[in-house]
Amino acid sequence: MLFKVEMTVNIPYGLPVKEQEEMKAREKAYSQRLQREGKWRHIWRVAGLYANISVFDVQDAEELHQILMGLPLYPFMEIHVEALCRHPSSIHDSDK
Amino acid sequence: MLFKVEMTVNIPYGLPVKEQEEMKAREKAYSQRLQREGKWRHIWRVAGLYANISVFDVQDAEELHQILMGLPLYPFMEIHVEALCRHPSSIHDSDK
Amino acid sequence: MLFKVEMTVNIPYGLPVKEQEEMKAREKAYSQRLQREGKWRHIWRVAGLYANISVFDVQDAEELHQILMGLPLYPFMEIHVEALCRHPSSIHDSDK
Amino acid sequence: MLFKVEMTVNIPYGLPVKEQEEMKAREKAYSQRLQREGKWRHIWRVAGLYANISVFDVQDAEELHQILMGLPLYPFMEIHVEALCRHPSSIHDSDK
Amino acid sequence: MLFKVEMTVNIPYGLPVKEQEEMKAREKAYSQRLQREGKWRHIWRVAGLYANISVFDVQDAEELHQILMGLPLYPFMEIHVEALCRHPSSIHDSDK
Amino acid sequence: MLFKVEMTVNIPYGLPVKEQEEMKAREKAYSQRLQREGKWRHIWRVAGLYANISVFDVQDAEELHQILMGLPLYPFMEIHVEALCRHPSSIHDSDK
Amino acid sequence: MLFKVEMTVNIPYGLPVKEQEEMKAREKAYSQRLQREGKWRHIWRVAGLYANISVFDVQDAEELHQILMGLPLYPFMEIHVEALCRHPSSIHDSDK
Amino acid sequence: MLFKVEMTVNIPYGLPVKEQEEMKAREKAYSQRLQREGKWRHIWRVAGLYANISVFDVQDAEELHQILMGLPLYPFMEIHVEALCRHPSSIHDSDK
Amino acid sequence: MLFKVEMTVNIPYGLPVKEQEEMKAREKAYSQRLQREGKWRHIWRVAGLYANISVFDVQDAEELHQILMGLPLYPFMEIHVEALCRHPSSIHDSDK
Amino acid sequence: MLFKVEMTVNIPYGLPVKEQEEMKAREKAYSQRLQREGKWRHIWRVAGLYANISVFDVQDAEELHQILMGLPLYPFMEIHVEALCRHPSSIHDSDK
Repeated sequence: MLFKVEMTVNIPYGLPVKEQEEMKAREKAYSQRLQREGKWRHIWRVAGLYANISVFDVQDAEELHQILMGLPLYPFMEIHVEALCRHPSSIHDSDK
Repeated sequence: MLFKVEMTVNIPYGLPVKEQEEMKAREKAYSQRLQREGKWRHIWRVAGLYANISVFDVQDAEELHQILMGLPLYPFMEIHVEALCRHPSSIHDSDK
Repeated sequence: MLFKVEMTVNIPYGLPVKEQEEMKAREKAYSQRLQREGKWRHIWRVAGLYANISVFDVQDAEELHQILMGLPLYPFMEIHVEALCRHPSSIHDSDK
Repeated sequence: MLFKVEMTVNIPYGLPVKEQEEMKAREKAYSQRLQREGKWRHIWRVAGLYANISVFDVQDAEELHQILMGLPLYPFMEIHVEALCRHPSSIHDSDK
Repeated sequence: MLFKVEMTVNIPYGLPVKEQEEMKAREKAYSQRLQREGKWRHIWRVAGLYANISVFDVQDAEELHQILMGLPLYPFMEIHVEALCRHPSSIHDSDK
Repeated sequence: MLFKVEMTVNIPYGLPVKEQEEMKAREKAYSQRLQREGKWRHIWRVAGLYANISVFDVQDAEELHQILMGLPLYPFMEIHVEALCRHPSSIHDSDK
Repeated sequence: MLFKVEMTVNIPYGLPVKEQEEMKAREKAYSQRLQREGKWRHIWRVAGLYANISVFDVQDAEELHQILMGLPLYPFMEIHVEALCRHPSSIHDSDK
Repeated sequence: MLFKVEMTVNIPYGLPVKEQEEMKAREKAYSQRLQREGKWRHIWRVAGLYANISVFDVQDAEELHQILMGLPLYPFMEIHVEALCRHPSSIHDSDK
Repeated sequence: MLFKVEMTVNIPYGLPVKEQEEMKAREKAYSQRLQREGKWRHIWRVAGLYANISVFDVQDAEELHQILMGLPLYPFMEIHVEALCRHPSSIHDSDK
Repeated sequence: MLFKVEMTVNIPYGLPVKEQEEMKAREKAYSQRLQREGKWRHIWRVAGLYANISVFDVQDAEELHQILMGLPLYPFMEIHVEALCRHPSSIHDSDK
């Protein structure tokens, strides 16, 4: 199943730079592992914002929830989730 | 350049069914032609809504504008546009 | 998979009473058939509003979408969808 | 009487992990006791969010209020309450 | 049980004056009957608006729902409902 | 003159319990004195929220302002004020 | 007592020009009479909008309500009302 | 040129009382000097709120900006600005 | 004085195409005349929307108001106005 | 490509004045360098607010993103981005 997830990051001012960098490095590794596994299908940066738009391909809402809860930057994120279907006008059987 | 576009359709109640069907058929053909040309990269249905989330790959904002203005259902659409960039955590050079 | 769906109905003033009644009868029959099939798990009226809060148990977002699109009153509804998971504090294996 | 309650939790960054875990454990025990008593009828996790959607079956608004005020995580919650009725399309006498 | 209900009326322009007056007369009679029965405890006009703030004293949400659905002007109303409790600072046992 | 006032309280996490209790005691005494004087006509708790809905009967906006500014919990409150009139459908000369 | 009132006018497209002009003429006469009586203290146009910001000096909310309900363009207005007090920094005893 | 400005003040809890009082005294003196100069034409308190509605009569937007930036409480204010014109229904040549 | 104005156009469905074209032609001529006069300094299309962002250089709010009221498409526009100043970081004396 | 960017700055109260001044000086230098390079085409102050409206002329969304991320005050900014096109009514080939 496909889900669109929008994540906006707000790191509180004053968090030590080293702690931030370490979290961002873990976030990147975590995201890339899931991308290689085919679960995190797309990730785009929204121009000008510390935010991304992503598409996940997971078994169900439970798996999505576990993935998002595991994000190292989750405590600083505002998250919006929408379940997606194949669009009847799509030229693909499944648009992943 | 990539843009995310969200389109929500509100067809006024009472529009003759035949007119609706004709417009939807033209909309589908128009979308599929652009998908085949590689300009309309993704189109997903939002579950439960008469709405889609799409990703366009165009020359610039001008080309995006002309494409959207040409949508047969445009007069009934509410549209939201966001410019996208490659995300630094993406494992792809360009996530199209 | 479970989804919470909130539906608010706005029937335009002036729609002939007979047409309204016929649509509502079809809506009720459609809802009750899906309830008996176990797909429309819960339906509650929101006090004071022409609105309901429902829980659906479906295969995936695609099945949810087809069910909602088939609602006789769909053209008059405002719809909000949220995907649900089992809550870790629930005393049930699956809270349907 | 039935009430739908949506609870979104925002624990301030920096709260000691031990204090958080202790509060969450008390929250879980509190919720499960009320579920076993039949007052907290349903609790679902909203996919991707630190939030739940619950249905309570209580004597009146006063009992609901006392239950919610007793939540160990209440100080960190944003709460939305809606009173529910039996829906005329329900196939159940009372949809609990 | 007490509920606060806010009602805002929007009568579509062009509805024949006679039809409006007849509806408003029925609305007034309906409201006054419920006031005399002690179910519609308070009704205030919001200064400058075609809106009221009311307090109902009913058995439960079901009775509230039936009362509101019976309002002759209901099709033109936007309605907000909130369940009330006795306030611990009130000097009354029950503030009706 | 009657005013409806909605007050929502947000006490910052970490304020010493003793300081909170002392403020709440002063708030209660202040409210009850005004209730006994007939100026704070109604006060209801909104179910599930640390919020109240109140009706004040004062000389004018100036008196209302002084009363609200004197609330011990005022620094933690979000306040909404609406001026009320007698409703033409009321069965009372003045609905206090 | 002073009230600030913001009025935004939305005349439905297609209302006969003659009918519009007649209503606007009556609106102007009504406003000017109240200005001369000292009840409608100020009226400003909001730059670029078919809207005004006004200050009324009336006995109480009831008088304000009657004045606003009498506006010939009232059926087409969106109205916001706020009760005003003398500001402690004002150099005037009463800023009318 | 006339501008309507709405200012809402939010002083952070815990700011030393002495510092607050000193700032408010400077704010008052600053406002009264501008009122005497005829630039700050009106200032009203919004009933129940730590907020004011003001009308400024300045050369242009630049002068307005400099005045607002000079407010001692500016760092704690939320500000809304609207440019005003003479209203065609006004009985004054210029409603200051 | 400079003002930023955002205009969003919503032409009602069903307005005869000829009438629309005639209005758009007049709108274009009107805009271009004001551009040539140096009063309508900038006009940009917002990508994907029937909307523009414009900068006007006018004597005062009154002149801006008259210009906007004269727009042939004004009855179909939603308008937002903000007064602008020279920015202290600008490298120009006046950024027109 | 042209983008409109709106930036609103919220510097947390208590940040040492020296640190603020140093950041603002770097912000100004950064902005002026980009203005001289022709990439930051316009920058206006919004009257009364610590906010600006800017127009950027960049290669693509990626370049815009890098520029905005490099703003010394970025951690304190709320940012809104809109992609612009040439407007068909513009009298310029490209309105920069």
